[in-house]
Amino acid sequence: MEEVRASFGRQVRTRREALGWSQERLAERAGLHWTYVGGIERGERNPALDNINRLAQALGVSLAALFAPLNATVKTTHSRKSRKPARPRRS
Amino acid sequence: MEEVRASFGRQVRTRREALGWSQERLAERAGLHWTYVGGIERGERNPALDNINRLAQALGVSLAALFAPLNATVKTTHSRKSRKPARPRRS
Repeated sequence: MEEVRASFGRQVRTRREALGWSQERLAERAGLHWTYVGGIERGERNPALDNINRLAQALGVSLAALFAPLNATVKTTHSRKSRKPARPRRS
Repeated sequence: MEEVRASFGRQVRTRREALGWSQERLAERAGLHWTYVGGIERGERNPALDNINRLAQALGVSLAALFAPLNATVKTTHSRKSRKPARPRRS
């Protein structure tokens, strides 16, 4: 699971709870199934742009606002094990 | 095709061209296939969060920055053809 999914899911949950909505209510407003919304909030889903947009609209926020808190997190998925240059074999 | 895809695609293209990169170069940096990147730029694809994140990282921008110019456009996907009320039949 990629870190960005978890961050996005937390953000959706935070926005939803700030509105005092259940997952069912958000799902209904976004035209999605509530189990799908639950999966997104838990970071289990990899939602596509259309559905991300539906969630943003249902939550009444811009896409940029929905992603704003992820900026700090985005970089984490960038981290990779640094490759050591191949060691020259001992002759 | 949803309007948000076209807007996102234009934004990816604008960012890529600002870097003077080919689609191939962006694709390579993002770990995606160049035909897929082309499809995204033309608004034909509905990229999922993981790949959106890869594109943002490859382009060196935050997700929020990548979506920032879409704010004005997002609302357009909400517009629907207004349904005319059924005309009463002539009696």
